[in-house]
Amino acid sequence: MTHEKLNFSLIKHNELKLFLVSVFKKIGCSTNHSTLAADVLLTADLRGIDSHGAARLKGYIALWEKGRINTKPKFKIIREKNTTTTLDADSALGLVSAPKAMEISIEKAEKYGSGWVSVCNSNHFGIAAYHAMKAIEKNMIGYSVTNASPLVAPAFSRERMLGTNPICYAIPAGKYPPIVIDMATSAAANGKLEIAQRKKLQITQGWVQTADGNTSTDPDELKNGGSLLPLGSNENLGFHKGYALGSMVDIFSGVLSGANFGPWVPPFVSFIDVLPNLPGKGIGHFVGAWQIDGFREIEEYNINIEKWIERFKKSEPIDKNVKVLIPGEPEHYCYKDRIENGIPIIENVITDLKQIAEKFKLHHPF
Amino acid sequence: MTHEKLNFSLIKHNELKLFLVSVFKKIGCSTNHSTLAADVLLTADLRGIDSHGAARLKGYIALWEKGRINTKPKFKIIREKNTTTTLDADSALGLVSAPKAMEISIEKAEKYGSGWVSVCNSNHFGIAAYHAMKAIEKNMIGYSVTNASPLVAPAFSRERMLGTNPICYAIPAGKYPPIVIDMATSAAANGKLEIAQRKKLQITQGWVQTADGNTSTDPDELKNGGSLLPLGSNENLGFHKGYALGSMVDIFSGVLSGANFGPWVPPFVSFIDVLPNLPGKGIGHFVGAWQIDGFREIEEYNINIEKWIERFKKSEPIDKNVKVLIPGEPEHYCYKDRIENGIPIIENVITDLKQIAEKFKLHHPF
Repeated sequence: MTHEKLNFSLIKHNELKLFLVSVFKKIGCSTNHSTLAADVLLTADLRGIDSHGAARLKGYIALWEKGRINTKPKFKIIREKNTTTTLDADSALGLVSAPKAMEISIEKAEKYGSGWVSVCNSNHFGIAAYHAMKAIEKNMIGYSVTNASPLVAPAFSRERMLGTNPICYAIPAGKYPPIVIDMATSAAANGKLEIAQRKKLQITQGWVQTADGNTSTDPDELKNGGSLLPLGSNENLGFHKGYALGSMVDIFSGVLSGANFGPWVPPFVSFIDVLPNLPGKGIGHFVGAWQIDGFREIEEYNINIEKWIERFKKSEPIDKNVKVLIPGEPEHYCYKDRIENGIPIIENVITDLKQIAEKFKLHHPF
Repeated sequence: MTHEKLNFSLIKHNELKLFLVSVFKKIGCSTNHSTLAADVLLTADLRGIDSHGAARLKGYIALWEKGRINTKPKFKIIREKNTTTTLDADSALGLVSAPKAMEISIEKAEKYGSGWVSVCNSNHFGIAAYHAMKAIEKNMIGYSVTNASPLVAPAFSRERMLGTNPICYAIPAGKYPPIVIDMATSAAANGKLEIAQRKKLQITQGWVQTADGNTSTDPDELKNGGSLLPLGSNENLGFHKGYALGSMVDIFSGVLSGANFGPWVPPFVSFIDVLPNLPGKGIGHFVGAWQIDGFREIEEYNINIEKWIERFKKSEPIDKNVKVLIPGEPEHYCYKDRIENGIPIIENVITDLKQIAEKFKLHHPF
């Protein structure tokens, strides 16, 4: 998706994985946790969500150096009913706490038809899709949301109050690749701004506003105290909806779990300090799963979801050269391509990764 | 919300309710079902969702006359696990089948922490918020979605494939009014177009496109074969997200339940025939509930959700005269106002309601 016309190196996925695992081990993660965390980042790179893959490794390490990430966490279930659990992640990487939460959700769903886990005291969990997609293998629909560093202003506000708070649904689709919806609740994900910054391009009106709340096309506006706009971008186009969805994610992830919420969510960047008098612990996630066959015979479901996909792919295009896509389809094709041909990693990320390798005296494929 | 500068009559809520009940009885609904259906429509009018209240009565009656609504339904549970159920609504009004589904969800959530019901063979269920809000009384978060007549085009398509497919979350909020998110997944709900049509106003670019897929500001564009645009409105502002959310609603409501989906969803207007070779039965809904105390002590939750609300209401406004609102706040204040001062019903709806009263020889307050 963000395969840019910039200088990049093609890195083989298995080589990148080995390197990522070695780094997580070096900062004290167990072998299991290292493999898992590496897998989450690698999956982002393979699916073309470049902003959430190896490019973030440097950020996780900086948080670990600041003592904000515990690489030897003891997960604790602090509340539980048949289909609900709250997990205290003991300041773990979200890359390992969210898979644990999803595992519990799936176990509950196997037993009761659905299962839900809220997580507090966690950190950034990578791409939402990794977690929700775990349900697919079990013929379940997976769900995952997380709150994140405040960058997005509510409708009619100029203050950063919400993260880009993604929502993910992963839906089994019979013989077709799963339908995967993984979307920031802001008009544009932060990664899109970063691309414009690197390319020195102006951005579309409707992504960001200035510190005073005026629209702006400057991709660096956030550095001047500006904020991201919610999905919908303005009053006429329904930015109260993006704000509402982002709020839902914040409440599910933060308020239900006992994590922080709103402007108190700890920033991902290590150089911004956590606010004083926090209302909760760390950042929060909320994940879950529904068994398909809790509602319908799998065979019947498959016939109908396949029909859904076939019909939507055939819906009349506006431009015959621009196909109507199924949610998750571009990422699926990107995955297949990058598994085969390697992952294009841009120059400045390569530089970061080399520095990490040198610092920890690790072999690297760059 | 849509209280317009048009001619209207102020009708007292209890008088409107009595009239609505009498109409539903007249078309064969039981006393219970009549009261329930009237309550759903009345709640829409009270909350200011005028397009979904008494204004729709005429439409429901027309569908009943066409034999598409069964006013003496026998609900049948066709599949069930501990926390999941599929309900065949036997062509009932969605105004009565969705409350039944919500009742089952809440029972399951009381026992297991969460509960989920998919409904097939149903009809239009009124405002989504009515159903989700039932969970609030039990200190649960309520969820409701429904598919609907195809009016919205997928991203990059010019074909009507999805309904305005609303998503609703109703979230308990301690001492404050509940947080209620009830949003169409299109850029603009159909009701907004209707207002522009009546007022002969142009609409904002980004709500509709022509039959060829060009943007349009004509509120009558749908009559010319045009379509509504998904939330996000265009490629730059993320209309693939609105499309994805609308798809999720369609799959949950239609494919999981065994109802129709996509372009096969039966149209609400009785003069458009149902398509041949339907893949499912009627329209579908999906509702559910999570117990708050499955995740956190209610008292702790309340302290934190109140803090969430207080902080968001205090977020810096762009314009000091335009407050930052909590989702559901405008509807809550509208409700309080209309309970006290009456419901403004516009002239052409009054005319429709009088005609219905005359046809069925009923007393009326208009």
